[in-house]
Amino acid sequence: MIRGLFIGRFQPFHKGHLKVVKNILAKVDELVIVIGSAQYSHQPENIFTAGERITMIKMALEEAKLDSERCYLIPLIDTMVHSIWVSHVKSHVPQFEVIFTNEPLTKRLFKEANMKVEEIPKYDRKICSSTEVRRRMINGEDWEELVPKAVADYINCIDGVGRLKDLFKTDKV
Amino acid sequence: MIRGLFIGRFQPFHKGHLKVVKNILAKVDELVIVIGSAQYSHQPENIFTAGERITMIKMALEEAKLDSERCYLIPLIDTMVHSIWVSHVKSHVPQFEVIFTNEPLTKRLFKEANMKVEEIPKYDRKICSSTEVRRRMINGEDWEELVPKAVADYINCIDGVGRLKDLFKTDKV
Amino acid sequence: MIRGLFIGRFQPFHKGHLKVVKNILAKVDELVIVIGSAQYSHQPENIFTAGERITMIKMALEEAKLDSERCYLIPLIDTMVHSIWVSHVKSHVPQFEVIFTNEPLTKRLFKEANMKVEEIPKYDRKICSSTEVRRRMINGEDWEELVPKAVADYINCIDGVGRLKDLFKTDKV
Amino acid sequence: MIRGLFIGRFQPFHKGHLKVVKNILAKVDELVIVIGSAQYSHQPENIFTAGERITMIKMALEEAKLDSERCYLIPLIDTMVHSIWVSHVKSHVPQFEVIFTNEPLTKRLFKEANMKVEEIPKYDRKICSSTEVRRRMINGEDWEELVPKAVADYINCIDGVGRLKDLFKTDKV
Amino acid sequence: MIRGLFIGRFQPFHKGHLKVVKNILAKVDELVIVIGSAQYSHQPENIFTAGERITMIKMALEEAKLDSERCYLIPLIDTMVHSIWVSHVKSHVPQFEVIFTNEPLTKRLFKEANMKVEEIPKYDRKICSSTEVRRRMINGEDWEELVPKAVADYINCIDGVGRLKDLFKTDKV
Amino acid sequence: MIRGLFIGRFQPFHKGHLKVVKNILAKVDELVIVIGSAQYSHQPENIFTAGERITMIKMALEEAKLDSERCYLIPLIDTMVHSIWVSHVKSHVPQFEVIFTNEPLTKRLFKEANMKVEEIPKYDRKICSSTEVRRRMINGEDWEELVPKAVADYINCIDGVGRLKDLFKTDKV
Repeated sequence: MIRGLFIGRFQPFHKGHLKVVKNILAKVDELVIVIGSAQYSHQPENIFTAGERITMIKMALEEAKLDSERCYLIPLIDTMVHSIWVSHVKSHVPQFEVIFTNEPLTKRLFKEANMKVEEIPKYDRKICSSTEVRRRMINGEDWEELVPKAVADYINCIDGVGRLKDLFKTDKV
Repeated sequence: MIRGLFIGRFQPFHKGHLKVVKNILAKVDELVIVIGSAQYSHQPENIFTAGERITMIKMALEEAKLDSERCYLIPLIDTMVHSIWVSHVKSHVPQFEVIFTNEPLTKRLFKEANMKVEEIPKYDRKICSSTEVRRRMINGEDWEELVPKAVADYINCIDGVGRLKDLFKTDKV
Repeated sequence: MIRGLFIGRFQPFHKGHLKVVKNILAKVDELVIVIGSAQYSHQPENIFTAGERITMIKMALEEAKLDSERCYLIPLIDTMVHSIWVSHVKSHVPQFEVIFTNEPLTKRLFKEANMKVEEIPKYDRKICSSTEVRRRMINGEDWEELVPKAVADYINCIDGVGRLKDLFKTDKV
Repeated sequence: MIRGLFIGRFQPFHKGHLKVVKNILAKVDELVIVIGSAQYSHQPENIFTAGERITMIKMALEEAKLDSERCYLIPLIDTMVHSIWVSHVKSHVPQFEVIFTNEPLTKRLFKEANMKVEEIPKYDRKICSSTEVRRRMINGEDWEELVPKAVADYINCIDGVGRLKDLFKTDKV
Repeated sequence: MIRGLFIGRFQPFHKGHLKVVKNILAKVDELVIVIGSAQYSHQPENIFTAGERITMIKMALEEAKLDSERCYLIPLIDTMVHSIWVSHVKSHVPQFEVIFTNEPLTKRLFKEANMKVEEIPKYDRKICSSTEVRRRMINGEDWEELVPKAVADYINCIDGVGRLKDLFKTDKV
Repeated sequence: MIRGLFIGRFQPFHKGHLKVVKNILAKVDELVIVIGSAQYSHQPENIFTAGERITMIKMALEEAKLDSERCYLIPLIDTMVHSIWVSHVKSHVPQFEVIFTNEPLTKRLFKEANMKVEEIPKYDRKICSSTEVRRRMINGEDWEELVPKAVADYINCIDGVGRLKDLFKTDKV
């Protein structure tokens, strides 16, 4: 059995993330999705709590009829100390054989720890980007088209856009 | 939809825990199982990492043909500061309506926060106890009968008993 | 009895802060003044220790013949984790019924926690601003007119301007 | 002007503490009362939050008609690192000249830092002791006679005895 | 070139430690001596600061005419999180090939990380023990015979016994 | 005997640092070299672990035939809390009489603590600068001329330039 790992902050989880999950699930038996920076929320770049992000990812996987039983959704708090980061990740998740990432630091750290790293297919970063979703939320543009419908519904339900706008005001001051 | 919460350290997950999960799943739509003291492992009372505990619980739920899709397995690090603990829990998990616990402190904290608390049916604490499982492991007695078969297999596979015996030696010194 | 809460970093406490305190004291029986970011000092934006800030606020209240017996001066260290922040505040101060603030994040967090939030009257932000006080200190302009006389005397007494200038040099390098 | 410092956990504040405060106020101009272990509450030896302890001390001082304007009530979180403890205290409180304590570690640390330490008069430790107050609370004996009336009233008002009994049950398990 | 690692708290450094160092230096080119629990001091079991322990070890190595140039003396703060401990150690010290220890937990953790572990020769634990040194200090017995002369001189110079006695009084209360 | 202290991050240790060490060693009997921000590595401004930095400094001192026996190489983690920083430093190193620094904040903090501070001779900051070394590494320019030969060899041996380039990519994204 092969288990893969995919790490993100998912602020919020968008259609690009969903494609990556689909893509990896075709290659592995089980997938650990790590919700990074789990302790943060209510910040302009970290709107949602870990619990809210878990909820929206679960909803998106089910809406897409992905095999959510093969997925683990695991929140993980940051440690700014990179030298212990690989151990930190490994201790919080089921054993995995390969990590899927394009992020240079993550690649570097896992390679230095002799773990197998695999690139993820490049999707269009301009529209498949949490930064773009948040930018559109703030400016009143159409952000819903960038995220799975279930995620849009959930964010509306908890007034995520209102929260982000408030956070953004604070940041400007 | 009703979501429940059940917190434990699960060092290890035993048949009593399994009964509780079954029992709660009959009452709620979804169940959040929080793996507490997530940061600790390799201690006499905290043998397994959070990742190992998630693995054994997932295996046990599947072996018991419980509806694991209705369960969330979420590791949570301790904070010794009880006044923030309810907020800490809530921020890491999907929104829940009721917490199932017999633990007086947990009950107190959630009640002071105006959350609904429900007692769990009492199972036989003498044999349904992680402390008893660990005691038998150290003394070479039959611990496997106290845990789901999948859990016993997994613990044997990662040499959990060997690890505990080593930790126990350290503690005595 | 109504108790209010007012949070600031007070780096330093200026005439605008004093007006706010006066204004709130007219509406409530007791006022908790929380000195935020209590752990920081000797930084360009956090010059003074919590103890120094408590000292200058006490002096300013007495100089203004405000009823300092109705005020609590309570230092509070930051937690970067916003989801626990309301609990963190509440556990360190006497119970309060209303928080006075114009700060969007603070407003948002207390509203999400179902606490009563009240706006504070807008004073002239150009001159009633700790940032402006510090800017003038660095540039050798007249900063004393922006703070209560007792605060100016205290800052001079502990060579606060000299300290800020040193910190500012470090920051530029 | 002479400012003194008196540190305690005040779980809860009892008549012995009150005598000490009275005694010190006769010797100094101002007194800083530091509420230690401020982050802890809801533990068998740390029942009350810092905010609750500040409230009861304020009430006790006013009931005793002590000059509460000459007192500062300052919560302080623990650091287990004793070598930085004196600096930690000093940064959170107004400058002080003498610390009043009989506690050997505190005495040692402040003396090694060249601070002036003064003994406090010995009151009857058998009945002037927070441990004894808590013991009586748990056993349903008369604890109210050991604390100022205002403190007893406040503890009853927040159901402090109920809380302690719950915490104590947890501890025994 | 072979570099070895030896970890201890060295509270204080005694003749048994010195023998171990001598013994290891005969087997490796360089030796990293890690001073563990570096953040603690002024506790009954952790009397001395990391800096004081570094000082006494340096003095003892020089007195014994050991090749102190081949040794690194490195303080390391504890992390209670055992799963990251090996990474934590490795990031703070020069690369090493073998760790010398009889401590079961340390052995276990380094073996699980696929590092080479070697036993150290057993010296007489009854008298080669920091616990015994501290016990004798408290009871006014001859502790100096258990430590290198340079260490005894240094401890006397900083009044280490006086400090321990004070700490011990606190602990009893 | 006079012991001096010199603090830096040494990311990496360059020829300017070496000159300072030589210069100070001419004035003091022993020198404590503190490797600051010890917990950080694998960041664009903090490439190397504390252990790697200790290794390169030791190599540079030996290559330069400096009296490395008179030097202590001590890693120290940051505390962002400046008010306890002097105590934090002092507890981790052997007692010292003078700190050598041109850094305004460090100077200020040690002076406020009544410690003796001495300026270090100004070397050419344009080329004696870790920032410049890292800039050249990223741009493929000649960085080796700025560091002692032993340091260049060591950095090449652990592929330090490759690591920095990876970290820098991450930072840009």
